[in-house]
Amino acid sequence: MSKRTISGQSCPIAKALCNFGDQWTLLIARDLMNGVSTFEGFQRSLKMSRNLLTQRLRAMELDGIIKRVIPPARKRAEYKPTQKCWDLLKTMISIIKWSEKWMPDVEGGKLEAVDQNGKEIALELIGSDKKIINEFSDISFKMS
Amino acid sequence: MSKRTISGQSCPIAKALCNFGDQWTLLIARDLMNGVSTFEGFQRSLKMSRNLLTQRLRAMELDGIIKRVIPPARKRAEYKPTQKCWDLLKTMISIIKWSEKWMPDVEGGKLEAVDQNGKEIALELIGSDKKIINEFSDISFKMS
Repeated sequence: MSKRTISGQSCPIAKALCNFGDQWTLLIARDLMNGVSTFEGFQRSLKMSRNLLTQRLRAMELDGIIKRVIPPARKRAEYKPTQKCWDLLKTMISIIKWSEKWMPDVEGGKLEAVDQNGKEIALELIGSDKKIINEFSDISFKMS
Repeated sequence: MSKRTISGQSCPIAKALCNFGDQWTLLIARDLMNGVSTFEGFQRSLKMSRNLLTQRLRAMELDGIIKRVIPPARKRAEYKPTQKCWDLLKTMISIIKWSEKWMPDVEGGKLEAVDQNGKEIALELIGSDKKIINEFSDISFKMS
């Protein structure tokens, strides 16, 4: 699918997928949120080629998802997540939960989002009555 | 990026993106949840070629995201979302919210997930103290 085709649609899902639909973006964002900040750090974690990683970091900087800074005492650039990157957190947690339910990996580890006490964070749908919604089939999408 | 490369990683984000990282999957899932059930219905909504739509529907059926049924009184197949599809709802709502915040479309409409009363549903991170978390920078990912 060409990016042009999908970005022509006004659906916010279609638009967002144009911005972080490239799978690497979310994996780099995950590392950023975990404190990885250097080119070498991302490369070690993601096993990407230098060329591809350079391209992705540049695109994410242009998109405002990361900021690139060169600390005074160092020569090497460091990368920091912006608010736009942190705001991908709910998307990432929802993907982790979906994956663990539907593609469980008996040998692999468990990835959790944790708060400052090291306790797992839950992601819940809250209805207009302020209660947690566990039955999804009453939900629909409304375009207004 | 080849799907093989990323599926070799055990991170649940990487695995899930292999399954619905193709942007069409989430757009078809959105239509399914809104009651679109026929080939022609998806085609009208998504403006996809017949070939591509056929491929995507078949892949989603194999992945267990949709089920294909032929109602007794009709000749034409209908498509229904499975629980695996409904479980993409939090991911979709989080993407909609991110998109509206960071890629606002002044001319476009607003897409909302609504409950049976037609009221908008919220998606919230809940910490170990049962309170809603609004400050994300204290959150990290832990692999266990």
